[in-house]
Amino acid sequence: MSENASPAPLRVTVWNEFRHERKNPAVAAIYPNGIHECVAGVFRDANAAAGAGDAPEFAVRTATLDEPEHGLPPAVLDATDVLIWWGHEHHREVADEVVARVHARVLEGMGLVVLHSAHLSKIFKALMGTSCSLKWREANDKERLWVVNPAHAVAAGLPEYFELPAEEMYGEPFGIPEPDELVFVSWFTGGEVFRSGACWRRGGGRVFYFRPGHETYPTYHDANVRRVLLNAVRWARPAGVKLSARCPNTAPLEPLPVAA
Amino acid sequence: MSENASPAPLRVTVWNEFRHERKNPAVAAIYPNGIHECVAGVFRDANAAAGAGDAPEFAVRTATLDEPEHGLPPAVLDATDVLIWWGHEHHREVADEVVARVHARVLEGMGLVVLHSAHLSKIFKALMGTSCSLKWREANDKERLWVVNPAHAVAAGLPEYFELPAEEMYGEPFGIPEPDELVFVSWFTGGEVFRSGACWRRGGGRVFYFRPGHETYPTYHDANVRRVLLNAVRWARPAGVKLSARCPNTAPLEPLPVAA
Amino acid sequence: MSENASPAPLRVTVWNEFRHERKNPAVAAIYPNGIHECVAGVFRDANAAAGAGDAPEFAVRTATLDEPEHGLPPAVLDATDVLIWWGHEHHREVADEVVARVHARVLEGMGLVVLHSAHLSKIFKALMGTSCSLKWREANDKERLWVVNPAHAVAAGLPEYFELPAEEMYGEPFGIPEPDELVFVSWFTGGEVFRSGACWRRGGGRVFYFRPGHETYPTYHDANVRRVLLNAVRWARPAGVKLSARCPNTAPLEPLPVAA
Amino acid sequence: MSENASPAPLRVTVWNEFRHERKNPAVAAIYPNGIHECVAGVFRDANAAAGAGDAPEFAVRTATLDEPEHGLPPAVLDATDVLIWWGHEHHREVADEVVARVHARVLEGMGLVVLHSAHLSKIFKALMGTSCSLKWREANDKERLWVVNPAHAVAAGLPEYFELPAEEMYGEPFGIPEPDELVFVSWFTGGEVFRSGACWRRGGGRVFYFRPGHETYPTYHDANVRRVLLNAVRWARPAGVKLSARCPNTAPLEPLPVAA
Repeated sequence: MSENASPAPLRVTVWNEFRHERKNPAVAAIYPNGIHECVAGVFRDANAAAGAGDAPEFAVRTATLDEPEHGLPPAVLDATDVLIWWGHEHHREVADEVVARVHARVLEGMGLVVLHSAHLSKIFKALMGTSCSLKWREANDKERLWVVNPAHAVAAGLPEYFELPAEEMYGEPFGIPEPDELVFVSWFTGGEVFRSGACWRRGGGRVFYFRPGHETYPTYHDANVRRVLLNAVRWARPAGVKLSARCPNTAPLEPLPVAA
Repeated sequence: MSENASPAPLRVTVWNEFRHERKNPAVAAIYPNGIHECVAGVFRDANAAAGAGDAPEFAVRTATLDEPEHGLPPAVLDATDVLIWWGHEHHREVADEVVARVHARVLEGMGLVVLHSAHLSKIFKALMGTSCSLKWREANDKERLWVVNPAHAVAAGLPEYFELPAEEMYGEPFGIPEPDELVFVSWFTGGEVFRSGACWRRGGGRVFYFRPGHETYPTYHDANVRRVLLNAVRWARPAGVKLSARCPNTAPLEPLPVAA
Repeated sequence: MSENASPAPLRVTVWNEFRHERKNPAVAAIYPNGIHECVAGVFRDANAAAGAGDAPEFAVRTATLDEPEHGLPPAVLDATDVLIWWGHEHHREVADEVVARVHARVLEGMGLVVLHSAHLSKIFKALMGTSCSLKWREANDKERLWVVNPAHAVAAGLPEYFELPAEEMYGEPFGIPEPDELVFVSWFTGGEVFRSGACWRRGGGRVFYFRPGHETYPTYHDANVRRVLLNAVRWARPAGVKLSARCPNTAPLEPLPVAA
Repeated sequence: MSENASPAPLRVTVWNEFRHERKNPAVAAIYPNGIHECVAGVFRDANAAAGAGDAPEFAVRTATLDEPEHGLPPAVLDATDVLIWWGHEHHREVADEVVARVHARVLEGMGLVVLHSAHLSKIFKALMGTSCSLKWREANDKERLWVVNPAHAVAAGLPEYFELPAEEMYGEPFGIPEPDELVFVSWFTGGEVFRSGACWRRGGGRVFYFRPGHETYPTYHDANVRRVLLNAVRWARPAGVKLSARCPNTAPLEPLPVAA
């Protein structure tokens, strides 16, 4: 059998805080089933758009804060190739044990796509090692995302820039380690710029941060944003090896001099 | 007054677990006052070697695990420009609160030089976000450290390689993020290689990891190793700004369109 | 039709100086049809190993120094997705015009895999901007290549290290820009180390340098080396966009203030 | 004598095409003695601002296109620690031999600060290995440069952003290798963004690209711009070693097995 025929579907888990949508009617109007369901739809749509006889490219599930273990017990993470994370006001409610489990899975090889206000999530900060702080403003700025690395897989199929007619503003300095690869830089009407799409490798896992997605705007319905999510998950696909965090004691491969 | 005249001394704090030296006579024979005092001597020696009329380049203090707050209360960290960290078997005894305090100071701008088995220290792992795992062997391998970046400040004054006649072996893969700059790669008699000197920026702080220094060898008495420590501390000197981890809400700098 | 069904084959061109093999019987004994034919066989073998009904993954051709335009007229480069380059003693005979053509194609998106002594080829030096110098010795050192980034696509399917029983030695410092990703570091019997597998992005193209392959050793017959070549070509596959080197004059997207 | 007392002055050479100023009265009105003299003034001013008894920090000279060897004979380059380069419409007139000489000096350790339209200079393209292309517009956009890396030496003493009331626009994508460190990102009124301050290491030399400086605006009279130039030159100071481009044949450091 060829290496290319009928690969197993890429297993995507979309995690969402899922509180705004249940409390704020304005958010519920935009995301009636939650941001997670809207984002999960990116991958369901991709499956549906493929040919009838094709194996589905993705297997999608969702998980939310208020489920037991936040919907991320070991069995779910073990069956996840790429995890998408949206959180905002309740980062502290995410149990340290679950964060440690997600962290370990990223280092083993699981991909992670971190969205918008999850720049302050425990898992993103743990992977970056930095403050991940930034400036912000909720004032209906227009955001224009420029592709600074047009050959990057996360930019596949995008125009040279795309716009979101109204979004929360995030401004520099963004307290992150120098990205391994920078893909998007945003321009905001109010005068700021932001590194809106950035890539890092951590252990066996790939991490992509993507800026847009404030809950009061229909950002995850936008076709270009959905294309970025699709691209990012494909890019963050695990390499197929499972890295270990062990520190093994190993015998020499060459003869050592006899100790005195 | 000129910017260059009589700068304030660079304030170096050398932290050491300081347990081996008090339990193991073989270690005590090499480091009778502890590894921290031997390392602190690098900077005292540099002061002594300067001209008689010169202001001292360094102000050095030490701190150890069994002191209150591990010798690192806020006042000490606030008065530290570069912290050197040696730990080995008691990483878990370092209080999370102190680790968080050190971490915050690095992000603000304090330099950090991480030595040998401190690759598994809480603070190094927190800054890297990765496993920091590696292979190891205690078997008197000879280590030869090659300078792969001869123009780097950490390699100043060194020959193209230097040797340690006997050391613990550390082997790849080393579970770190891609270094911003790689300075040393080690060759070991037993057949392994290791990225032995590597640099990262995290927030306002510079982090340097340096491999050698197992407690049963006189590594920190070696002239080349001492030169690396001197260079690394100079390189990790803070920039003179204190970065904040706050996320300020900011007003627009340009007129925004009137919301509909 | 699905995006995944029957992709067009990846078009690989293997370039070789092809002088040693015609002058030195010892080299001809190892590579009777030239190094290029041995390397091209990696991709023919991969096609043959695939299922009978599968479309071939690769379309392979070769090109050599003494062909007109060194076998690389525009039509060949336009039909090349990834170019592999082996050169040694005749770098200066490669016409600047052809080098410029290859360079432009890499920036547009073509992948480039640079082998062994081609570290001093015009095209590699032009892409790196540095000396690409190193130490060397022909003395039958054993080389052991350690995988320092086990999750990297170029390391797929490899053990934690592999050995070449005899090879030319290359030693640090290697005069390259800091690699975007380092994959292999070599250990040599004679005491040196070398960054043996390194990745860079230049414009739309991906560049991989791979150290082994002196003409007097059967290196390109080695199964692990062949696996690296296969992986590297897959990794260097173009993104599917063709980058331009033009500097367009562009109209503003937002209203500008009226000039005074 | 101490290492810190009375260091030799940092030798800065400011290179300028110096054609616009002699042909275009509007440019001459802004830079009556040429852009080079205005930029050289940054370092003369710094010397003058130091204490009366202090040794000067800088020794400054200038060089221009129409001087013999463009003012850069070997003796001048050998006596240059950091070279600043402004060019625009006559890149092709710069002799390849002089470019090769500058290139070699950067790899040996000389710093290089590349200004504005010199993104297309032969020397910058040779060091980057890429197209260095970008979008542009001359339309009096306001430029706001955001500091994305506030702890970087090139940002010392700057506010979180600074503005140039009118400048030429440069827009992404900028065809450069991923910077080692990104310092500034610009916002333009017309809707674009640009990586306006970026650092790379090439061999022993440090390279800084700084975007502003179109000849028809008084940009190099701006206090913040002058601060960036001062910082950049200090940052690009050579390490004090002179790297070689030679590839030496070296004897083994460890016994090799006897060849069969």
